[in-house]
Amino acid sequence: MTGDPTDAPSESPDLTCYRCGRTASFPDRKRCECGEPLWFDTDGAAVGFEWPDSERSGQRGEVGPGVWRYADLLPVGHPGGVAAAAGATPLVRVPDLDEGCRLHLKDESENPTGSFKDRGSAVGAAWASAAGREWVGTVSHGNMAISVAANAAGTGPDGPDALVLVPDDISGERLAAIAQYDPAVLRMAGDYGRLYYDALDADAPVEFVNSDTPLRVAGQKTAALELCEAFASEASASRQTGASTPAPDAIVLPVSSGGHASATWKALRELRAAGLLAEADLPRLYLVQAAACDPIAAAYRRGADEVTATSDAEDTVAYSIANADPPSGTRALAAALETGGAVLSVPDGEILDAKADLAADAGFCVEPASATTLAGVRRLSERGELAPDDDVVAVLTGTGFRELDADGAKPDTVALDDLSERLRALTG
Amino acid sequence: MTGDPTDAPSESPDLTCYRCGRTASFPDRKRCECGEPLWFDTDGAAVGFEWPDSERSGQRGEVGPGVWRYADLLPVGHPGGVAAAAGATPLVRVPDLDEGCRLHLKDESENPTGSFKDRGSAVGAAWASAAGREWVGTVSHGNMAISVAANAAGTGPDGPDALVLVPDDISGERLAAIAQYDPAVLRMAGDYGRLYYDALDADAPVEFVNSDTPLRVAGQKTAALELCEAFASEASASRQTGASTPAPDAIVLPVSSGGHASATWKALRELRAAGLLAEADLPRLYLVQAAACDPIAAAYRRGADEVTATSDAEDTVAYSIANADPPSGTRALAAALETGGAVLSVPDGEILDAKADLAADAGFCVEPASATTLAGVRRLSERGELAPDDDVVAVLTGTGFRELDADGAKPDTVALDDLSERLRALTG
Ligand SMILES: [Zn+2]
Ligand SMILES: [Zn+2]
Repeated sequence: MTGDPTDAPSESPDLTCYRCGRTASFPDRKRCECGEPLWFDTDGAAVGFEWPDSERSGQRGEVGPGVWRYADLLPVGHPGGVAAAAGATPLVRVPDLDEGCRLHLKDESENPTGSFKDRGSAVGAAWASAAGREWVGTVSHGNMAISVAANAAGTGPDGPDALVLVPDDISGERLAAIAQYDPAVLRMAGDYGRLYYDALDADAPVEFVNSDTPLRVAGQKTAALELCEAFASEASASRQTGASTPAPDAIVLPVSSGGHASATWKALRELRAAGLLAEADLPRLYLVQAAACDPIAAAYRRGADEVTATSDAEDTVAYSIANADPPSGTRALAAALETGGAVLSVPDGEILDAKADLAADAGFCVEPASATTLAGVRRLSERGELAPDDDVVAVLTGTGFRELDADGAKPDTVALDDLSERLRALTG
Repeated sequence: MTGDPTDAPSESPDLTCYRCGRTASFPDRKRCECGEPLWFDTDGAAVGFEWPDSERSGQRGEVGPGVWRYADLLPVGHPGGVAAAAGATPLVRVPDLDEGCRLHLKDESENPTGSFKDRGSAVGAAWASAAGREWVGTVSHGNMAISVAANAAGTGPDGPDALVLVPDDISGERLAAIAQYDPAVLRMAGDYGRLYYDALDADAPVEFVNSDTPLRVAGQKTAALELCEAFASEASASRQTGASTPAPDAIVLPVSSGGHASATWKALRELRAAGLLAEADLPRLYLVQAAACDPIAAAYRRGADEVTATSDAEDTVAYSIANADPPSGTRALAAALETGGAVLSVPDGEILDAKADLAADAGFCVEPASATTLAGVRRLSERGELAPDDDVVAVLTGTGFRELDADGAKPDTVALDDLSERLRALTG
C-alpha cells in the first residue's frame, strides 16, 4: 500500500550539537568538533508540527504508517517494503506488574526484525536509498546488525547493500540471523569497541548507521513520539474526566550507547518546541544499565556531567547493552539530568527475575536487556522516585525469542486415555 | 492505556454451521452434529457494521487497538495486557517480489509472540477471563502453544491459567518457549493427531482454544478485516484517480487445520453482509500446503467437496502446517471454492527458495510455513491464475527467528588496521 516513490532527502539538512550548539552538515559529519554526537536540528523544524490526522496530509504529503507517520520530522519521506513496516508498536497497560506506579509497556519487539532498531535502520536505509548510496553499514553483531541488513535488503536491487562489521568470534546463530538478508559481512579482528569510531572515519563510500548516528536517532525518536501521541489522544478523549495525563510521568529505558536515550530526549524536545508538550508535563527519563557494565550510571552517581569509559566491565546477562565506552553516554546523561530523571543500574539477578515476571505475569517474552526496565522500575519505586499515580512507560526493546534456553525440566507424560482423569485432577 | 474492565461476554452467542445451517450455543458445543466445525454467527450481526472511526465509539464503546478495533464483531470486548497488543500488523507493498501480480505482504510475525496465533488466543483468553473460567487450553507444540500460554499469562492472577498439551518428544527449545509463561504443560503419549478431538470431548473445566474453534476463528478473522480496511481506506483516499481497488483481488495463505482459512472467509462474508464489500470485489482465497502433506489440496485436485485424511504424509520443512487430518479442511476447501480461488501445494525446495528470497530481497524473516505463500504466488502466476494488475496479499503467519540455522559458512576475518583498505576494495 506504500509503493510510492520515496521523497528525495532534503539538501544538507542541518545537524546540531546538543552541548556546544555548533552546526554541521549531514552526511559530512556525524560528530561535533567538541567530541559529542550530532543530531538533526528538528527542534526548530518542529515548530508548527501537529499530531498527524489520518484525514489530513502532512507537509510531506500523505501520512504514512508507523515511523512514517512522523515524516514531517524526519530527514526522508516514507518508502515501501520492510521499512514501511517499522514502528506503530503497541503500548499496553499492565496492572499486574504495578509496583508503586501505573505501569505501561511499549513493546518494541513487535517490529519487523523483533527490536526497536528497525526504526533507525528504516530511516537509514530509506535515506541511503533516496540519496543514491550504494552501501549502508553498521557495527553490530546483535539486533542492530539484523535490522540494518533487513532494511537494506528491503530497498531492493536499486537500493543500497548492507555491510555489517561483526567481531571475529561471533556465534553461528547470530551470524545466520544476519546472513539470511545477504549483506556483506566482515569479521573484525582487534578491539571491537574502537571500531565504532574507525568505521565512521573510514575512507570509503559506506553510510554507517551506527548506534547513535543522526539517521538512527531520527528514526528512533518516533517510538517516543508514538507513546506521547497515545497519551495525548487518551487525554483528549477523556478530558472531561481528568483521568489521564497528556504524557507519561516517566519513561524508563535500557541504555547502552546512549543513542536510544538521545532519541527519546530529542522527541520530547521537539514536542515541547511544537507546543504539544508543556514544560511541566515533560516525562522524566530514567535510564537503566546492568550493574556489571554501567559507565553512565557511574557518572550519574558521582554527580559528573560527563561519562568516562569503564575499565572494569564484567559479563552480564544483558549483553546487548554492555557498552563500556558509550559514544552518546554524556548526551544520555544530559537527557536524564535535564528531564529530572536518573540513571541507575541493576544486578543480573534482578534482571532475570524481571524477565521471568514479564513472561509469566504479563505474557511478554523479552531479551534480558529489555527486562532491565522492570528491574529499574522496582528499584525506583523502592527509592520513592515513583508515585502510585505516576504513569510510567517501560520500553521493551527486543524479543527474547532468539535466545531460548533448551535445558529446562521436562513435564510429566500422560497417556492419551488418561486425559480426562488427569485434567480433572489438575483443575479440580 | 487499555486497562478498562473487560466487557462481559454476551449470553450464549449463537454458533452456526457454514454447511448445514444448524445452530448451537457457545461454549457448549464447538462442532456441529453434521461433523463440521461451528463458528460465531456474526454474518447477521455484521449488518450495520461500519469501519471504525477513531473519532467515533463502536457499539461496544471505545474503539480499541489492533484486534479490538473490531470488537463489535467479536464475542468479547477489549481487555488490557498482552491481548491488547495483538493485531494491527503492517501491510506493505513489495514490488521487488512481484511476479505476475502486484504483491503485498501482511506481516503477522509482528504480533506479541511472533505469529498470527495471537489474534485468536487474545480473544480466547479474554473470553475465558470475562466468563470467569479458570482454565484455557490448547493442543499444540508450536506457535499456538506459545501464544495461548502468553495470552493466559496476560490475564493476570484472577484470569485463567493455561493448559498446554504437547507431544511426548517435544524439543527443549520449544518447551522453553512455552514454559516461560508458566502454564501447566502435559506431555501426551499416544496419537497426537487424535488429541484435537479428545481435548474438546474431555470431561473437565478447560476451555480449549484449538486451531479452528469458534473463539480462535473469531479472533483470527481480524487479520482479514484489517487488510480489507487498509485497501478500502486507500481506495477511498484515491477514488478520483481510480488507482486502487476497494479490496485485494486475492489473498494467499498457508493452510493447515483450516482454521485460518475459515476465519479469512468469515471476515469476507461479514464485510459482504455489512455492505462494505460488493460480491464482485470479493477477494479470491488461495490456500497453500506443503506437497509432502496436502490433504486439502488433494481434495481440490480431485474435484471433491470434502477433505479426507492423508495416510501417506511425509516430513516437510513447513512442519507447522503439516496436518494430515485437518479438522476444518472441508470448510477451508469451501472457502477457496466459493470465492473462486484454489488450493495448491508446493514442494519443499520452492518453499525454501521463497523463504530465502523473502529475507534477501524484501527483508522479512519468516518460518518456512509462511514462505509457502510466495511459492504459491509463483505457481499461480505461472498457471495464469493471477493478472499483472491483480493486488495479491500474501499472509506471513510467523517469525523465522525461532529457528536459525547455526551451520552457515563464516565470512573472512579482517584486521582492524586494514578496515579502510578492505572497505574500498569491497565498494570500489
Ligand atoms: Zn559540540
Ligand atoms: Zn452442520
